[in-house]
This record gives sequence, C-alpha cells and structure tokens, in this order.
Amino acid sequence: LLAGAAAADDDMDYYMSVFEPLPALPPIPADNSLTAAKVELGKMLFFEPRLSASGVISCATCHNPALGWADRLPRGTGHEGQIGLRNTPTVLNSGFLPNQFWDGREPDLEGQALGPIQAPDEMAMDLEEALERIAEFDIYIEHFTRAFPEDETPISAENVAYALASFQRTLNTPNSPFDRFLRGDQGAMTEQQVRGMMAFADNGCVACHQGPALTDGLFHRFELPGPTDLGRFVVTGEEHDRYAFRTPTLRNVAVTYPYFHNGSIDTLHDAVNLMGEQMLGQEFDDDTLNDIVAFLHALTGEQPVVNIPALP
Amino acid sequence: LLAGAAAADDDMDYYMSVFEPLPALPPIPADNSLTAAKVELGKMLFFEPRLSASGVISCATCHNPALGWADRLPRGTGHEGQIGLRNTPTVLNSGFLPNQFWDGREPDLEGQALGPIQAPDEMAMDLEEALERIAEFDIYIEHFTRAFPEDETPISAENVAYALASFQRTLNTPNSPFDRFLRGDQGAMTEQQVRGMMAFADNGCVACHQGPALTDGLFHRFELPGPTDLGRFVVTGEEHDRYAFRTPTLRNVAVTYPYFHNGSIDTLHDAVNLMGEQMLGQEFDDDTLNDIVAFLHALTGEQPVVNIPALP
Ligand code: HEC
Ligand code: HEC
Ligand code: HEC
Ligand code: HEC
Ligand SMILES: [Ca+2]
Ligand SMILES: [Ca+2]
Repeated sequence: LLAGAAAADDDMDYYMSVFEPLPALPPIPADNSLTAAKVELGKMLFFEPRLSASGVISCATCHNPALGWADRLPRGTGHEGQIGLRNTPTVLNSGFLPNQFWDGREPDLEGQALGPIQAPDEMAMDLEEALERIAEFDIYIEHFTRAFPEDETPISAENVAYALASFQRTLNTPNSPFDRFLRGDQGAMTEQQVRGMMAFADNGCVACHQGPALTDGLFHRFELPGPTDLGRFVVTGEEHDRYAFRTPTLRNVAVTYPYFHNGSIDTLHDAVNLMGEQMLGQEFDDDTLNDIVAFLHALTGEQPVVNIPALP
Repeated sequence: LLAGAAAADDDMDYYMSVFEPLPALPPIPADNSLTAAKVELGKMLFFEPRLSASGVISCATCHNPALGWADRLPRGTGHEGQIGLRNTPTVLNSGFLPNQFWDGREPDLEGQALGPIQAPDEMAMDLEEALERIAEFDIYIEHFTRAFPEDETPISAENVAYALASFQRTLNTPNSPFDRFLRGDQGAMTEQQVRGMMAFADNGCVACHQGPALTDGLFHRFELPGPTDLGRFVVTGEEHDRYAFRTPTLRNVAVTYPYFHNGSIDTLHDAVNLMGEQMLGQEFDDDTLNDIVAFLHALTGEQPVVNIPALP
C-alpha cells in the first residue's frame, strides 16, 4: 500500500511536470511596453464601433465579453451581416499565443490588430477614415498623447495596434482549478478531472496542447465537415500546410463553443472524440471521454472584470 | 441691494418650482413589481445577441452602454446593416416616459420590448425561435423560474418583456448638476448654466420639456431635412399628427447626439437654435444660445454602472 502511494506520488510528479500554470501576464514585447495609459486607450478602442464602416461593429461585437470574449456562433458575423469563413477565437490569453489567427498569418497581437478593422467581412473600414473619426474627439487626442508621449503624431494606425495589443495582453484568466491544482491545491480539481488530466497526458493530447496556453503554436492537418478552408496553405503555399490549422488554446474552452476552425462542432464531447480519431487514431471509451471533458472544464479561469468604458 | 437680492431669491423660488429633480426610480406598474431576479434576468436579455436572427445584435448593440445607451449614429443600424428610419433614443430614464418610441405607439416598456426583437430592420427575429434558443440553457430556465415563480411556463414572450422593462427601469441617472442644484446645492451648476436654466424657463422650452424627465410625453409637429417620417400620424391617422413626434427627454442630452427623430442635427447648439425657430418662432442671440446649451450639459447625471453579464 505504501509502495503504491509512493508510486502514485511519483506519477503525480510526472504529470505536474508535463503542464505549466498560466502566468499572470504574457510576454511583453520590447517595443511595446505595457503601460496603464496604453491599456486604457486599448480598451476604449476595443469597444469603439466607430472603427467600423457601419459604426455599430466593434472588436467587442465578435469578441463579446458576455460570451467568453467570442461570439458563440459557428463563424464570425460582420459587416452587413456577412458570415466569414472561420470561427471567432476568444481573445482571452491571446497574448500567450506564439502567433495569431487560425492560420498563424500574424506573428503577434500588434500585427493582428489592424486586420479585422479593414477586412471587408468584419469591420470593412478604411484605416485612414478610422483615424480621422477618432481624431475628431479631444478625449482620444488626450489618451493617445498620454499613451505615446514621444510620438509626433500619436494618433496613428501603428499606435491603434499597440494599444489594442496592450489591452488584450491584460485579458488573462489565471487561477483556474487546473492552475490551482498544479500549484499544489489538491482539492482544486475533482477526481474525475484529475483522471481526465492523466488521460490527456497519457494519450498524447499534450504533444500539441502544451505550455501555459495549452498550444504548441504549430500547424496540424485537420479536416472537418462544413466550408472548406485551406488553412495554413494560404500563408505558405506549401502542400503539407493544406488544411493545417494552428493548435488553439484550450484555456476556457468550455465557454468558447462551438469548436474548430469552422465552428461546426457544438460540444466538447464531440470535439474530443474527433481529436482522438483524427489526431491520435484512437477511439476513446465513454469513461475516458467524459474524464477528458471534465478536465477541459477545469481550464476555465478567473474572467477579467472589465467595466464598459464611456466613449466620447 | 437687499431688495434686489430678495427679488432674486423670489425669482429663484419661481425657477425652482418650475422644475422637478429626477427620482431614483420611475413609477413601477402594479402588474410588474421590480424584483432583483427580474432585473438580473432583464440585464442578461438586454445583452443577449441570441435574441437576434444573426446572433450578433443585442439591445446593447444600439443602446450601447459605452455610448450613452444609444449608438451615436443618425439612425439605428440593425439586421444585415440595414439603416432604419429613426434615431436611436437612449434607454436611460426611459421608465420615466409616459409612452415609448418617437411616435408613442407603445404605452410602456413592457409593450415596447418585443418590438425591436421582431422588427425586420432591427433584430429580425422570430419570437418563438428566440424563446426556443433561450430555453436551451439551464441557466435561463433557472433565471426565468426565479423571476416568475408563479408561472407555469416562465419562459414566455410576456416575461421577456417584463424582465427587459424591469432592467431598464433601473437605468436612471440621478444627481446631475441640475438635480443637485434643485435640491439646494447652489454651487452644483455654473453661473452660465443657471442663466441657461432661466432662459429655458423664460422662453417657454419648459412648456414641452417639463417634469422629471423634461418631457410632456405629448406630440408636436416638427419638420427636419432628411428622410420624411409621418411620425405620430402613423399611429393615429389624424391629420394634426402628421410629422408630430413625442417630446424626447432632455436628460443626458449632451451624450445622446446626434439629435431629433432622424438624427440629422449634430450639435446641441444647432438643436436649440432649431427648437427656438420652429417651436417658439424665436431667434436666440449667441449668448442665450450658449447659456441654454451649457444648461443642457448640466442634465447629464450619474451613469449606471453595469457589469457585463456572463451569458451561458
Ligand atoms: C466580424 C467579427 C470580428 C470582429 C469585428 C473582430 N474579430 Fe477578431 N477574429 C474574428 C475571427 C473570425 C477570427 C479568426 C480569423 C482567422 O483565423 O482567420 C479572429 C481572430 C482574432 C484574433 C486571433 C486570436 C487567435 O487565437 O489567433 C485576435 C487577437 C482578434 N481577433 C482580435 C480582434 C480585435 C482587436 C478586433 C477589433 C480591432 C477584432 N478581433 C474584431 C472575428 C472578429
Ligand atoms: C497533432 C496535434 C494535436 C493533437 C495530438 C491534439 N490536438 Fe486538439 N487541436 C489541434 C488542432 C490543430 C486543433 C484545431 C483544429 C481545427 O479547428 O482545424 C485542435 C482543436 C482542439 C479542440 C477544439 C478547440 C477549439 O477551441 O475549437 C479541442 C477541444 C481539442 N483540440 C482537444 C484535444 C484533445 C482532448 C486531444 C487529445 C485527445 C487533442 N486535442 C489532441 C491539435 C492537436
Ligand atoms: C437596430 C437598432 C436597435 C436595436 C437592436 C434595439 N433598439 Fe431600441 N430603439 C431603436 C430605435 C431606432 C428606436 C426608436 C424607434 C421609433 O421611435 O420608432 C428605439 C426605441 C427604443 C425605446 C423607446 C425609447 C423612447 O425614448 O421612446 C426603448 C425603451 C428601446 N428602444 C429599448 C430596446 C430594447 C429593450 C431592445 C432589445 C430588445 C432594443 N431597444 C433594441 C434602435 C434599436
Ligand atoms: C412645442 C413643444 C416644444 C417646445 C416649446 C420645445 N421643444 Fe424641444 N423638442 C420638442 C419635440 C417634439 C422634440 C423632438 C422633435 C423631433 O425630433 O422630431 C424636441 C427636441 C428637442 C431637442 C433634441 C433632443 C434629442 O434628443 O434629439 C432639444 C435639445 C430640445 N428639444 C431643446 C429645446 C429647447 C432648448 C427649447 C426651448 C428653446 C425647446 N426644446 C422647446 C418639443 C418642444
Ligand atoms: Ca470556438
Ligand atoms: Ca439622439
């Protein structure tokens, strides 16, 4: 019995070493220090519908704080109700991702931010016009000047991107049951969740879903029913990238349904089943499936509390 | 000098008697008592984009808390980017209005609530389908049951309306500089604002903009450049109602630009000018105009702090 307990302890040490808890903040790039002024400005811009041609779509429309900072729709719905090709990922913990978008076409949040403003099926906005609209308001001039005091023209596309990136780097969800468990609080996860964690490691999920955000940031081939999407191939033109998508974070995955790049799968149960089949060539029995799903629920962390900013 | 001060005091008594401060709560109808459970549910529904056909438009899209609970657009922009006929009024203090909509076609917030869900150019949603979507979530079943414990089928269109009305009755903005002034704090308004208040009363604005919300709830003929709108005529078919609109509240009017039923006027300055010309046949000099505008700024009250609800 004692030997058994010791073995179990060793096992647990192994599992604990496989995973990493989520730090409070993601890496901050050297050229975009995280200041309160930028975060505050970025928050205003994140909720600012005047960054869209219609004047009613903001980042928060699709990355809705009420809906896990996503939209709970299969695919993003933007300008004039157009439905895009891909599922809207949560922006929670997006600062921990080594690249942005399902196809990884942008290296960081700074590079990512100006995409949706201009995308014809998202905010459909001319960037110059967006800047002109913003520059009409004294309060924005003040906020940009405070956030970028050394710039001659603080209201610039680059600084919009810097501010949005800074705000998003604060949208993290630490202290999930999983994180508390990893830090030594053995009661933080249920027994079923602990079993799920072990199954997740033993079956090789952790090969791709690794690191603090539970993603390797790499691209893997995955085909789904629904609209066809060439995935990473669009970026590289390389044959092996056809239908390959970046491993998404599993942080808060219980609140960011539906699943996969085209949002065609509604439940975690079905998502895990498909992952087993396609990524591991394996069919899980019901118990294992339920354990893994229970574990994924333990990845929901403390949600950031964000008061809606008063816009000018 | 003493006599002059006494006369001024009498004057002030007169002005103080013309106006009414905003109570903390509007009248509560006998058949819809204001309970915490209804308010909480109503808040969820107010932010719930699944009440729209597209799944991305909620009441908060157009009545955006970041934008004075309106949209700062000339006219409402809804389903598939369609632009409606009328300017989106703020829902702040809407419980104080004796009827709802620019044409007063609904008597109260209960009657009002189901309109925008179904309007083809707003949320374009089938009501039955909306209820079905909501009923899929255990958390909504719980909230409806808690809010309407005596109902056999708590999830009903009627109860959606009751809950939305209840939430909106909490969106009030007391303690504006004007209210504090009326309650005896003489320093709450600037001297210019006090002069503006007097001009507002002396020139007869208060004939229509009266009572706690500064509206008589009645319909007055008003023509504007821009799209033609028959106004109250659509409701009554009476000739004298052609182009007549309900006097809007002036509470928070500084933050609910642009102005008038079609949103064609951008500034308070121009709005007051037009009111003088059309409603009073009077042209104000610049000083009077500026005083009145300064007074209208004193009508901006404490904005409700609403944390974005976590939706299922
Ligand atoms: C119309 C819906 C919509 C709007 C508006 C929108 N997004 Fe997105 N967002 C998406 C979709 C869909 C994707 C995935 C696109 C892809 O992978 O090609 C995405 C991807 C992202 C990502 C990458 C996350 C990841 O896991 O790779 C970030 C970060 C992001 N958006 C932030 C923003 C910001 C900031 C704004 C506003 C400036 C914004 N979004 C506006 C729908 C939207
Ligand atoms: C070979 C790499 C790889 C392995 C192994 C892997 N995954 Fe994934 N996972 C991915 C990729 C890539 C996606 C995104 C696929 C897409 O949407 O196109 C994904 C998506 C998911 C999603 C949906 C996330 C979302 O937000 O849409 C879940 C849940 C998931 N994986 C769980 C698991 C589980 C559980 C296992 C083990 C049984 C596993 N994965 C094994 C790479 C992998
Ligand atoms: C697409 C934009 C849009 C959406 C979505 C929308 N509204 Fe409105 N709202 C308007 C417009 C425009 C009016 C004025 C319509 C009229 O007078 O005919 C209005 C009027 C109102 C009024 C009357 C205020 C007054 O001063 O008379 C209330 C209250 C209201 N809406 C609440 C809601 C609620 C509750 C919802 C969600 C169930 C909602 N609105 C959804 C644009 C919208
Ligand atoms: C005869 C009635 C009447 C009088 C007198 C009157 N108003 Fe109005 N007021 C209205 C009506 C009706 C509207 C809405 C008109 C429309 O949009 O069609 C309105 C609209 C306004 C608006 C725009 C509000 C908004 O949110 O769009 C302002 C500001 C305003 N009035 C201020 C004043 C001032 C200042 C005076 C005195 C100089 C005044 N009003 C006199 C009836 C009146
Ligand atoms: Ca998703
Ligand atoms: Ca307005």
